Amino acid sequence: MTEPLHLEDLAVGQRFVSPTKIVTVEEITGFARAFDPQPFHVSEESAHATLFGGLAASGWHTAAMTMRLLVDGGPKIAGGLVGLGGEIAWPRPTRPGDTLRVETEILEIRPSRSKPDRGMVKMLSRTLNQKDEPVQTLTATIVVPRRNAAAG
Amino acid sequence: MTEPLHLEDLAVGQRFVSPTKIVTVEEITGFARAFDPQPFHVSEESAHATLFGGLAASGWHTAAMTMRLLVDGGPKIAGGLVGLGGEIAWPRPTRPGDTLRVETEILEIRPSRSKPDRGMVKMLSRTLNQKDEPVQTLTATIVVPRRNAAAG
Repeated sequence: MTEPLHLEDLAVGQRFVSPTKIVTVEEITGFARAFDPQPFHVSEESAHATLFGGLAASGWHTAAMTMRLLVDGGPKIAGGLVGLGGEIAWPRPTRPGDTLRVETEILEIRPSRSKPDRGMVKMLSRTLNQKDEPVQTLTATIVVPRRNAAAG
Repeated sequence: MTEPLHLEDLAVGQRFVSPTKIVTVEEITGFARAFDPQPFHVSEESAHATLFGGLAASGWHTAAMTMRLLVDGGPKIAGGLVGLGGEIAWPRPTRPGDTLRVETEILEIRPSRSKPDRGMVKMLSRTLNQKDEPVQTLTATIVVPRRNAAAG
């Protein structure tokens, strides 16, 4: 167990690498049936004739798996990983059998002006497959408490 | 059944309203156990003492539910709703019992320069709760085929 990180513990350029996760057909089609039931996500058969040319994970499934990898192996922020939003892109789809990992870099650290007990941190999380190709890039702004606020 | 929409059928300012969806505790905690197992998402008990002050859906769960509402009642794009990425923000959390709907507006239409059979469309999808408060705003860029390309 490592100590949870406060604003004072973070530095621009700091990097975090998650564990890996293998993506299965069942996970892709299960997520799609619940949240994104389109032909290219729900079965190999229906995906074949689409512009994906075969089964592809919903981008939101890639985002959800990325979050799980960040919770398991991203920066351990005090109070949890709470995002306000960000920019997301899917340069290529996640495919069945892909092994994903997430590499995160701290881009910007900004103490809050209105709330002295916290700051905003911008981080870039790149979700890479086994060929080191990005399947998702996410630049997210998260809320991080200051250490003295936590103690006081 | 309405005809699927091609690039020529879309206009800036066009609006689409989804059906509604009631969010349950079980859905929130189930999604969280799979993808975002943090105290404020996995149970009422563990959420109580966090900065959310009670159970809140993962932002990625809100995003996934938004996608489902878009598939069920957003613009019916020919070939499906395929996003390249976008900007996402969660101004407030989705709570158990919330009734969500998604209101989408077409912001920008841009024929592709390199691929004459398609264009890029920027759309704003606001996910609102029963008090008309946004729980998510998403400005997404999607790929839309041209009609003549589909016919030819």
